[in-house]
Amino acid sequence: MAKVGIVMGSDSDMPVMAQAAAFLEKMGIEYEMRIISAHREPDVFFEWANGARERGLSVIIAGAGKAAHLPGMCAALFSLPVIGIPMKTSDLGGVDSLYSIVQMPSGIPCATVAINGGKNAGILAAKILAVGDKALEEKLQAFQKEMRDEVVGKDEKLQREGYQSFLK
Amino acid sequence: MAKVGIVMGSDSDMPVMAQAAAFLEKMGIEYEMRIISAHREPDVFFEWANGARERGLSVIIAGAGKAAHLPGMCAALFSLPVIGIPMKTSDLGGVDSLYSIVQMPSGIPCATVAINGGKNAGILAAKILAVGDKALEEKLQAFQKEMRDEVVGKDEKLQREGYQSFLK
Amino acid sequence: MAKVGIVMGSDSDMPVMAQAAAFLEKMGIEYEMRIISAHREPDVFFEWANGARERGLSVIIAGAGKAAHLPGMCAALFSLPVIGIPMKTSDLGGVDSLYSIVQMPSGIPCATVAINGGKNAGILAAKILAVGDKALEEKLQAFQKEMRDEVVGKDEKLQREGYQSFLK
Amino acid sequence: MAKVGIVMGSDSDMPVMAQAAAFLEKMGIEYEMRIISAHREPDVFFEWANGARERGLSVIIAGAGKAAHLPGMCAALFSLPVIGIPMKTSDLGGVDSLYSIVQMPSGIPCATVAINGGKNAGILAAKILAVGDKALEEKLQAFQKEMRDEVVGKDEKLQREGYQSFLK
Amino acid sequence: MAKVGIVMGSDSDMPVMAQAAAFLEKMGIEYEMRIISAHREPDVFFEWANGARERGLSVIIAGAGKAAHLPGMCAALFSLPVIGIPMKTSDLGGVDSLYSIVQMPSGIPCATVAINGGKNAGILAAKILAVGDKALEEKLQAFQKEMRDEVVGKDEKLQREGYQSFLK
Amino acid sequence: MAKVGIVMGSDSDMPVMAQAAAFLEKMGIEYEMRIISAHREPDVFFEWANGARERGLSVIIAGAGKAAHLPGMCAALFSLPVIGIPMKTSDLGGVDSLYSIVQMPSGIPCATVAINGGKNAGILAAKILAVGDKALEEKLQAFQKEMRDEVVGKDEKLQREGYQSFLK
Amino acid sequence: MAKVGIVMGSDSDMPVMAQAAAFLEKMGIEYEMRIISAHREPDVFFEWANGARERGLSVIIAGAGKAAHLPGMCAALFSLPVIGIPMKTSDLGGVDSLYSIVQMPSGIPCATVAINGGKNAGILAAKILAVGDKALEEKLQAFQKEMRDEVVGKDEKLQREGYQSFLK
Amino acid sequence: MAKVGIVMGSDSDMPVMAQAAAFLEKMGIEYEMRIISAHREPDVFFEWANGARERGLSVIIAGAGKAAHLPGMCAALFSLPVIGIPMKTSDLGGVDSLYSIVQMPSGIPCATVAINGGKNAGILAAKILAVGDKALEEKLQAFQKEMRDEVVGKDEKLQREGYQSFLK
Repeated sequence: MAKVGIVMGSDSDMPVMAQAAAFLEKMGIEYEMRIISAHREPDVFFEWANGARERGLSVIIAGAGKAAHLPGMCAALFSLPVIGIPMKTSDLGGVDSLYSIVQMPSGIPCATVAINGGKNAGILAAKILAVGDKALEEKLQAFQKEMRDEVVGKDEKLQREGYQSFLK
Repeated sequence: MAKVGIVMGSDSDMPVMAQAAAFLEKMGIEYEMRIISAHREPDVFFEWANGARERGLSVIIAGAGKAAHLPGMCAALFSLPVIGIPMKTSDLGGVDSLYSIVQMPSGIPCATVAINGGKNAGILAAKILAVGDKALEEKLQAFQKEMRDEVVGKDEKLQREGYQSFLK
Repeated sequence: MAKVGIVMGSDSDMPVMAQAAAFLEKMGIEYEMRIISAHREPDVFFEWANGARERGLSVIIAGAGKAAHLPGMCAALFSLPVIGIPMKTSDLGGVDSLYSIVQMPSGIPCATVAINGGKNAGILAAKILAVGDKALEEKLQAFQKEMRDEVVGKDEKLQREGYQSFLK
Repeated sequence: MAKVGIVMGSDSDMPVMAQAAAFLEKMGIEYEMRIISAHREPDVFFEWANGARERGLSVIIAGAGKAAHLPGMCAALFSLPVIGIPMKTSDLGGVDSLYSIVQMPSGIPCATVAINGGKNAGILAAKILAVGDKALEEKLQAFQKEMRDEVVGKDEKLQREGYQSFLK
Repeated sequence: MAKVGIVMGSDSDMPVMAQAAAFLEKMGIEYEMRIISAHREPDVFFEWANGARERGLSVIIAGAGKAAHLPGMCAALFSLPVIGIPMKTSDLGGVDSLYSIVQMPSGIPCATVAINGGKNAGILAAKILAVGDKALEEKLQAFQKEMRDEVVGKDEKLQREGYQSFLK
Repeated sequence: MAKVGIVMGSDSDMPVMAQAAAFLEKMGIEYEMRIISAHREPDVFFEWANGARERGLSVIIAGAGKAAHLPGMCAALFSLPVIGIPMKTSDLGGVDSLYSIVQMPSGIPCATVAINGGKNAGILAAKILAVGDKALEEKLQAFQKEMRDEVVGKDEKLQREGYQSFLK
Repeated sequence: MAKVGIVMGSDSDMPVMAQAAAFLEKMGIEYEMRIISAHREPDVFFEWANGARERGLSVIIAGAGKAAHLPGMCAALFSLPVIGIPMKTSDLGGVDSLYSIVQMPSGIPCATVAINGGKNAGILAAKILAVGDKALEEKLQAFQKEMRDEVVGKDEKLQREGYQSFLK
Repeated sequence: MAKVGIVMGSDSDMPVMAQAAAFLEKMGIEYEMRIISAHREPDVFFEWANGARERGLSVIIAGAGKAAHLPGMCAALFSLPVIGIPMKTSDLGGVDSLYSIVQMPSGIPCATVAINGGKNAGILAAKILAVGDKALEEKLQAFQKEMRDEVVGKDEKLQREGYQSFLK
């Protein structure tokens, strides 16, 4: 049964949202992924978000751009954590998306990650689930170590080969 | 029967929203005014916005601040014009509200007025109704003349008394 | 007889303005379209905007970039609704255009849509006309359904084929 | 045993951080609260954040202003969810704090809430804990209902007394 | 005969515009000062700006706030230099006014000074007139010396009394 | 003898500054053009700006990007009008240049034009010189007519061929 | 002999600049403090900055607001480190000052501290001098310990008395 | 023995950081260069920064992008000057990096240079070391002369060949 819902308002957000999905897969977390527009099909959206808890979802990851209402409206309808991903926009760089997601009024928080932060949304969802799941927490620590080793490897290359080798 | 719906998410928006109501009264336009939060009572909100057309509303004026989703969600649910008023915010000055209202995605426009532009929202609603109402159009022209006379009067005072009289 | 006037200050705005025109055509709404610069030919502009009501226009859609005065000056001269489209700019992303259009002073509203929101301006104009035109309102509902079906179709593809099919 | 750690770099952040604490108390969630500066006492900070998991914490709420490093550095050291609260600043309104907290690099998410969003941070922490705690989820739903009733009450007053009663 | 026209759209701009007038008086430059709104009385505005050259004006100083169209529209109608003063605004600090004035399209420059820069607008007008007026240029140099002496005097006080004397 | 000085801090500004020069040539106005860095060769800069009046210059056009000090320092050293051109920057779009030029302190105005507004700076310089030069004023009016005819021509094409002809 | 020069363009910057002076005094570092305007008395400024090295200065701290040229021009004339303090401004919050100081072109760095960061400028100057001064480095470490103890003290109060004691 | 430490959180920052290294080499200053992520390997980072003074470093240059904590955390751990380089970001242009580095709280300054200002960071480090190193100061003056000659050379080309030669 899916534990995480991934939802976006437009398939143009897919390259970012896919990063969240890919991370959940890597952690072995089941998810459902949907393209649902809160603006174009508000009834579908309401039904989906309203029923999410009953379907077994524990976390929702919602991405949207510009006047990005999807994450905040999820937070209004879903009683557990909602993670919002502000999409980069071609005119304002994503500040519009960011403000529309992070500046939620008192009472209805939306856990916002960086602009285009699809992977981080996936990691945050996993961390939330790991609060009650020791095995998942260990997987996350292994992932943390991976990231760390990657940096260490780059530094070793730098010490070995000098900075010019990075400029090619 | 009310032709204009005025809706706000919080009574803290009232000083701005009241300006819209006052202008509609001045023009003799009936309206209904509601405090409904899209975030705190999404079902009430959906029912209200979904039924608005049937109740006879022709225009909705929605005001909201910060991650201001109310106007855009009205535009998703109501088939006729929705006017959005971005509230000034104490931290970001209202840029957050403005972006959350004006940057609507393709397909779902929200007619946005200036930050804290309550009166202008009322005027815009009246202009929309005046498209099919000659008498109202004339009232609006009379109002336009009033505004004009007010400026003319101030200029006359300036010519008469000099600028120092304005600095006290 | 044209009901909507579409005006832009420069032909470089045409790709955005054409989206408004195309939508009006789709709805069967007659329009006139002009390139008139409020800055370079203020007298032509004044005559056009001043005579717009008499020529039968009910709504004006005006697009402009940078210090975008065209929409606001239309609103000063035309007694019915004016819709403003802020153009994206290469240096400031369109924030300059947006502020110059949306931040109109009390008394002279300009119904502002998103940066480069040409299609949304067309939709908003149609919604305004639909206040007094049941047949048009129905066409708009059909369009709304189209948009909705498009999203539903994409979601069905996602459920069928998985997210990788969107990343190619 | 405390489940949530609340940490701030300066006691000037207390009015905002206290709202998080107050909400946790209302939900019956144990927390520890500390004033620790990542900049002024980095070793104390490291020890605290590094040992947080072992002390039993499941969520950290960190608030900071200006170049707000505390939440992100918590996220680097603590393997479970970290919630960041950007403080309003007197010069930049809190945009500096917001960017310093939300724009975390890939791999190290920080769940960011609105500027000065102390209460929302508390609510988000509770929602995270509620993923594995049915009783808490019900308390949260009761709280949601409270908020809803409050809005409904204000709307009833509006219908009863008119908008002027809100302007005094 | 007045050489400089000072125009503002609202008497609320007077405290700033008066600084321009006061400087012109100090330099012995004749001016006319008007409150004319390009938005509320566009015909009065057009007549005034169109006739300005004939009335003998050589420079126009125009101040406006928010969607500040007055200076740019003056520049469209008046063939000699127009100086624009962006007014500080309570929500956006004056960035809206600044962009609306300085970002003029190619062909129609508007000489923009700082936000609320009333005095600087007066000085710039005087500098423009001084191009062909040796006596005025000398007056300006005397003023420059005054400003200089003022700073020198403050520095002398600092050297004499120490910085604490400035903190009271 | 040159009447206008054109100065830039770096040859990378030339594409913009050349537009000013080209316009002056078109108007038959003599100018001197220099690459002088206020930061890299402050003594050369001081000598040039200090001697500008004596060499016969009546207006200086200065362009600079980022922390753009050149225009403001010219204004400090030259007693007649200085026009500043903020260069577009790759990171901040030119807001940095704009603020560094337009926000001059009281006493030292800098007539600022739009970001990358090279041509407008040339036009403004010509307008300043035209205050005392009837023949130049007429040339400027002829130029204004040229611009106007260009727009009229485009509108005629639009009426003749329809908007699609502009989209190719 | 003074090792640090503190310079500001206006005595209105004194409350911020005095914090730098106070910290230098606390560290026993001699300084000279001047009010010199690069814009109002450029020759005095040039002489002062040009002679600074010869007078024995090793570091300059320069504060300025709005189009803040003073720090950058110091950096152009003085061969050793220049620290810039952007002043908070009433309209733009100090973003204008910040950009004018930090965005220096390649070749002429200006070590920028936070908006209104007078004390930090003093600390940075001391750190620079401490590179070659062991005794000063130790004083700085003692100061660091002071700061640390202050935070520790506040945290102890929090543990002892609870957060309500901070809200009074 | 290395006097300057150059550190970055990601090898994607190398093109900018390499400019600092190249300048130090040109001045004959020894440095160590590391890729260390404060977020991904906080313990490695702490050890490195904590031991920097003992290893003989006198200055640290730290570059980072987005929520850029590396420079500020260096400043918390290292008692001598830390120079911060804000990286340009693809969405926000580098404003996020800039605020995260420059807006350090009182007590912990970070000497910030321009966005992507790698070379300026190198120059600033050299200037700091030159406070106690006459030979290095002379090398810096020679470099200053180089820069100056380069501008002079470009101006000579302009006088010789005209501006068109720069536009190719």
